Amino acid sequence: MTRQIASPSNPLIKEIRKLRNKKERENSGNFYVEGIRAVGEALSTRQTIKNIIYCQELLESDFGNQLISDLPDDFVGLIEVTAEVFDSFSLKEGPQGLAAVVHQSWASLEDVTADRGMWVALESIQDPGNLGTILRSLDATGGKGAIMLGQSTDPYHPSAVRASTGAIFSQKLIRTDLRSFQEWKSRTGYPLVGTYCGDVTPYRDYNYPQDLIILMGSEQKGLQDEHLSLCDDLVTIPMNGSVDSLNVSVAASIVLFEIYDQKGRAG
Amino acid sequence: MTRQIASPSNPLIKEIRKLRNKKERENSGNFYVEGIRAVGEALSTRQTIKNIIYCQELLESDFGNQLISDLPDDFVGLIEVTAEVFDSFSLKEGPQGLAAVVHQSWASLEDVTADRGMWVALESIQDPGNLGTILRSLDATGGKGAIMLGQSTDPYHPSAVRASTGAIFSQKLIRTDLRSFQEWKSRTGYPLVGTYCGDVTPYRDYNYPQDLIILMGSEQKGLQDEHLSLCDDLVTIPMNGSVDSLNVSVAASIVLFEIYDQKGRAG
Repeated sequence: MTRQIASPSNPLIKEIRKLRNKKERENSGNFYVEGIRAVGEALSTRQTIKNIIYCQELLESDFGNQLISDLPDDFVGLIEVTAEVFDSFSLKEGPQGLAAVVHQSWASLEDVTADRGMWVALESIQDPGNLGTILRSLDATGGKGAIMLGQSTDPYHPSAVRASTGAIFSQKLIRTDLRSFQEWKSRTGYPLVGTYCGDVTPYRDYNYPQDLIILMGSEQKGLQDEHLSLCDDLVTIPMNGSVDSLNVSVAASIVLFEIYDQKGRAG
Repeated sequence: MTRQIASPSNPLIKEIRKLRNKKERENSGNFYVEGIRAVGEALSTRQTIKNIIYCQELLESDFGNQLISDLPDDFVGLIEVTAEVFDSFSLKEGPQGLAAVVHQSWASLEDVTADRGMWVALESIQDPGNLGTILRSLDATGGKGAIMLGQSTDPYHPSAVRASTGAIFSQKLIRTDLRSFQEWKSRTGYPLVGTYCGDVTPYRDYNYPQDLIILMGSEQKGLQDEHLSLCDDLVTIPMNGSVDSLNVSVAASIVLFEIYDQKGRAG
C-alpha cells in the first residue's frame, strides 16, 4: 500500500534532503535521483531502489505514470507526496514529480579485467558536472565505466547524477588510489593511454586497442609524472587559440568519440 | 595612485559583488572576471577594463604581479584590497588575489558576415557552464564566436566566464532572436549546418565549408522545425548506449573538432 506524506518535516523526507550531503550519502550508501527518465533508467537497469517518490499533481507524463503502475506488487518503497513536499527536496526548476532513492553501486579494479572494454580513469576530478558528463559520453560510446583516482568528487553528487542523465546506472564506478591502480596495472598489463598536452601522438593518429583505459589528468594540473610513467602511450588533442586547454569532460569525450569512430570503421 | 580598500562594505566592493546578478550586469554593462590567467587575457586582448582588483597578500604569482606592474601609468582603475575584502567577492575556493571588472562587448550578425569563419549558434542555451565550455572549445578550434538565439543564459554569468577560461575575451558574442536570424540568413546565405538527432549525415562524413555556423538545439528540446527549415544541411553524431544524447557543450565540441581536423587535413 502506498503511503502518502504531506509534511516536509516528515523524517523520511528529511532523509531524502540530507542526501545532498556527501557524508549522508556515504553513511547511508544511498543517493537521490530525480526525473522520469533517470528513474526509468534505474528501474530498467534493475538497481536496488529504496524508495520511489511521486507527486500525482506534478506527474503529468504517461510514461512516468506507467513506471509507477508497472512496479511489482511487492515493492514496498513507493511513497506519494504532495507538491509542497516534492518541492522541498526537488533539485529541478520545473519538477516532473518523480524521484528515487537508490542504493549506490561500486565496482573494483578486478571488474575491469572481468568486463573488458573501454574505461576512463580520472585523476582527482573536482567538478561533479564534469564527472557526470563523462559518464554520459561513456554511455554514448559503449564504454564500461569510470575509475576515479585520488581525491575525486563523488559520482553520486546530485550534480554528477543529473549531468549523467541516467548513465550513472549504465556505467560501472570504481574508487581507488594511485598506488592500488599502479599495482593492478603492472599485474594485469591492461592497456593505458594517457591524454597529454604536449608533443605526443595526435589522438586521431593513434590506433586504439579494443580494450583500454583512457587516463585523464585533473582539471587543474593535468597528468603528473607518476601517471605518465604508468601509461603505455600518450595522445594529445591538437588545438590552437589562446586558451590552450579544454574542459576535461570535452577532452575525454573527444577521445572517446575517436575510439568509437575507429571501432565503427573496423566493423 | 592605487587606492587601498579595507572594508567589504565599501560601495565599490558592493558593486563588484552585485555583478553576480544579471540585472546589475545589464544595467552597468560590466562583468566580473577572476584569476591571473583570465585577467591576463583581458589585458592582452585589450578589453575595456573598468577596474583591476588585487590583494598583495594573496597574489603570489610572479606573472600576476608582473601584470600589475606592467599596467600603463594612466590606468586609473587599479584597486588594492585586503584579503578579507577580496574574499567577500571572490568566486574561487583558493583565490589568487587578482580580478577585474570589464566592460561587456557585444557583436551583431553583421559582424559574422564581416569576420567570416566558424561560428556556433545556440538556441535557448540554459546552462552558463555549458555556454562557457563551448566558448572555450571555439577558441581551441579557431572559431569566431557564438550567436545566442532566444532566451539564452548570459555569457557574462560568472559560471560562463569561469568555464570559458578566458575565451570570453577571444570569442565574439551575439544576442538575437530567431526572426532576425532568419532574415539575416536568407539575406546573406551564410552556410548553416544543424546538429540533429536522427537519420541524417554522420558528422564525420560531411564536408564542412570554410565559413559556417553550427546550429545547436537547446539542452531540453534540441532543434525544432523552425530551426531545421533554416539549415542548409543537418549532421548527426552517431552513438549507442542508453542515454542517446550528449551534453550540448560536448556535442558542439565534437563537431567543432571534426571541422578543425578537416581544415588541418586540407592544409
